[in-house]
Amino acid sequence: MLTDSILKGLRVVEASAFVAAPLGGMTLAQLGAEVIRIDPLAGGLDYKRWPVSENNTSLFWCGLNKSKKSVAIDLASPEGRELATALITAPGPDAGILLTNFPPRGFLDHETLKKRRPDLIQLTISGDRHGGSAVDYTINPRLGIPFLTGGGDAQEVWNHVLPAWDLVTGNMAVIGILAAERIRRQTGEGQHIKLALEDAALAVMGHLGLIAEAQLGTRRERVNNDLFGAFGRDFLTGDGERIMIVGLTLKQWKALCKATELSASIAELEVQLNLNLNEEGNRFKAREDIAALLKPWVSSRSLVQIAEVFEKSGVCWSKYQTVQQLVGSDPACSTSNPLFTDVEQSGVGNWLVPGLPLNFSGIPRAPARAAPQLGEHTEEVLTCLLGLSTAELGRLFDKGLIGAPSTQKTTVKA
Amino acid sequence: MLTDSILKGLRVVEASAFVAAPLGGMTLAQLGAEVIRIDPLAGGLDYKRWPVSENNTSLFWCGLNKSKKSVAIDLASPEGRELATALITAPGPDAGILLTNFPPRGFLDHETLKKRRPDLIQLTISGDRHGGSAVDYTINPRLGIPFLTGGGDAQEVWNHVLPAWDLVTGNMAVIGILAAERIRRQTGEGQHIKLALEDAALAVMGHLGLIAEAQLGTRRERVNNDLFGAFGRDFLTGDGERIMIVGLTLKQWKALCKATELSASIAELEVQLNLNLNEEGNRFKAREDIAALLKPWVSSRSLVQIAEVFEKSGVCWSKYQTVQQLVGSDPACSTSNPLFTDVEQSGVGNWLVPGLPLNFSGIPRAPARAAPQLGEHTEEVLTCLLGLSTAELGRLFDKGLIGAPSTQKTTVKA
Repeated sequence: MLTDSILKGLRVVEASAFVAAPLGGMTLAQLGAEVIRIDPLAGGLDYKRWPVSENNTSLFWCGLNKSKKSVAIDLASPEGRELATALITAPGPDAGILLTNFPPRGFLDHETLKKRRPDLIQLTISGDRHGGSAVDYTINPRLGIPFLTGGGDAQEVWNHVLPAWDLVTGNMAVIGILAAERIRRQTGEGQHIKLALEDAALAVMGHLGLIAEAQLGTRRERVNNDLFGAFGRDFLTGDGERIMIVGLTLKQWKALCKATELSASIAELEVQLNLNLNEEGNRFKAREDIAALLKPWVSSRSLVQIAEVFEKSGVCWSKYQTVQQLVGSDPACSTSNPLFTDVEQSGVGNWLVPGLPLNFSGIPRAPARAAPQLGEHTEEVLTCLLGLSTAELGRLFDKGLIGAPSTQKTTVKA
Repeated sequence: MLTDSILKGLRVVEASAFVAAPLGGMTLAQLGAEVIRIDPLAGGLDYKRWPVSENNTSLFWCGLNKSKKSVAIDLASPEGRELATALITAPGPDAGILLTNFPPRGFLDHETLKKRRPDLIQLTISGDRHGGSAVDYTINPRLGIPFLTGGGDAQEVWNHVLPAWDLVTGNMAVIGILAAERIRRQTGEGQHIKLALEDAALAVMGHLGLIAEAQLGTRRERVNNDLFGAFGRDFLTGDGERIMIVGLTLKQWKALCKATELSASIAELEVQLNLNLNEEGNRFKAREDIAALLKPWVSSRSLVQIAEVFEKSGVCWSKYQTVQQLVGSDPACSTSNPLFTDVEQSGVGNWLVPGLPLNFSGIPRAPARAAPQLGEHTEEVLTCLLGLSTAELGRLFDKGLIGAPSTQKTTVKA
């Protein structure tokens, strides 16, 4: 065993809201870093973000702030901002790291913070590269993806439900921090890393070839639920279930033809269309004809029958499930998968919580932990990091400059 | 300046195909690591993946293998596999890192490789956690997301076009490697890190609160293009353009009400519905009524008029563009954005290529570079890393065990 957690000792202060920055901080926390999220006394901009529980606790907030420490400070007051600054720039060889999606102004100004800790690593996520605001919901429409999603006429658009650009950006923030910390260990120097949601999204559009495709003059059409560039489509089984069937690689395609006993019909189709369907692009061109051959095979069998044949033959496929079905009956989404732990979230309930999907052979897999209550670690962190005395903490609580779960209700009303 | 590239000196060998692992390798390469992708002589499983250019060069492959070195080896032969093993386990303090999405068997077996280099870091991406195969197209249907995307009746499903789970997994692989390399610098010990696409996706479903929501018995409904949990929707302008308008935070909501001069009507609506619309969840509950107030305002104005008002007032919004419009006319997707460089891809053409979205203050921003030709670095890498002589290289070329762009045509036909 190398250690009990892979980023043990690393300390990150997070000033954030919503998906990207909190996700980045949570990933660092699940890797074992001490991640201290600083919030205003009534909670950050995302403190009430839906989905919420019956008692209006944000399941979103709990999900994206797991394993962190929470410090609540009146960030509108100079004294509160000074406390935040002191936390961000507190000493320690593996500390001095700030992750934020707030503008690098005021107490988050990098040059100002650097005066207090010259080797500070600050990663600032912004909407666009000029620091302007933008969210996943406004970035995605500009990229053309909604015109390619689903079916319908060319003018119809469908937004994605998953905030994919936020997810990419949050992970990229972790990469930036780890890379910068690696260099700092070699040179002792910190730096300010900027990461725009817009740029992270545009980069992916280039990586996947969509920008080059458009520049070369090819117009991508919307293709309903078909897999682009090879064969893949959804089908209805005889008992009304929906499945996705994929023939992306040659091996998958051969397995599909064999399992459905359609090899001879496919060979006839190849002659008829004069296309070699062992080439993936030709499978895309011939997708309607291929689907027409598969459709009666699938619709004349039940899901159970199909599953048996496909599993035996190594076909690449899956069934469509609702989130309810996933959570209610898929073993992968249960504690039989070591990714998950049943976790008690204080005052809200017990639910299935995912840990880190990375499984390190040299380090025991840590069970997932709950999100903190707002201000749960205010006392602990201010005592340990800033050396504040009990008397000093009492003064700050009394003045309403810091908050803890016990004081929160009063504070919010104030 | 700290260095000329942030991961300078780090060397990673990649044995991969498709999105996640190649994206991870490319991110490391754009961060300055030496990333050597090993492929069979005719190219990997993704070498012809669509989109393709007119001469059938994969724009997808070029996009996901930028800045790497390419080595082509006959991996079906024992001698070829020995060359690959030697590359993976070649000495060097910042080397001995393998990124793969192939099963850890045969020459990729971790225990076997460890005998040659005990401190090897191997990151293996698999479909599910048992090592079974799965792709983004089969993971996504199981998660319930297609039932939540778009409009239509409850049984309709829409697959996502963006391989979001692959993107998350590829970035997570980089995080795993950087974290493991950090520990190795402290302890000298390597390890095998496993990462399942399925687990990476399930973890996100938990992080965003979707699993907890289902466990608590709330059924998420599909909401067309509405932003879930606050206000956000698409609208058609008077001149037939489509825009997305967002009132997620209170500040955005206030700006929207002010810009559209609807504050009084909104106040009336609040009384009528007995809902405080300053609370984001109430904006979601009242979204149809809010949209009904906004619709005539938007539809009676042109895009240009709306843009002028919204930009002045700080409204969070964007227009919908096709990929063609993005590439053809959005300044963010052009060389005026330092993310992009016009890059000549050998034998294919010149196009707009994104570099790294992370902008490090201590390190000059490197322009994006092209993908290699298949086998472009075979000679260079085998000479520098394994010390092969010209005579030995000649023998390997003659026996058809290694390939380079000049020999590729012969090799592919063979």
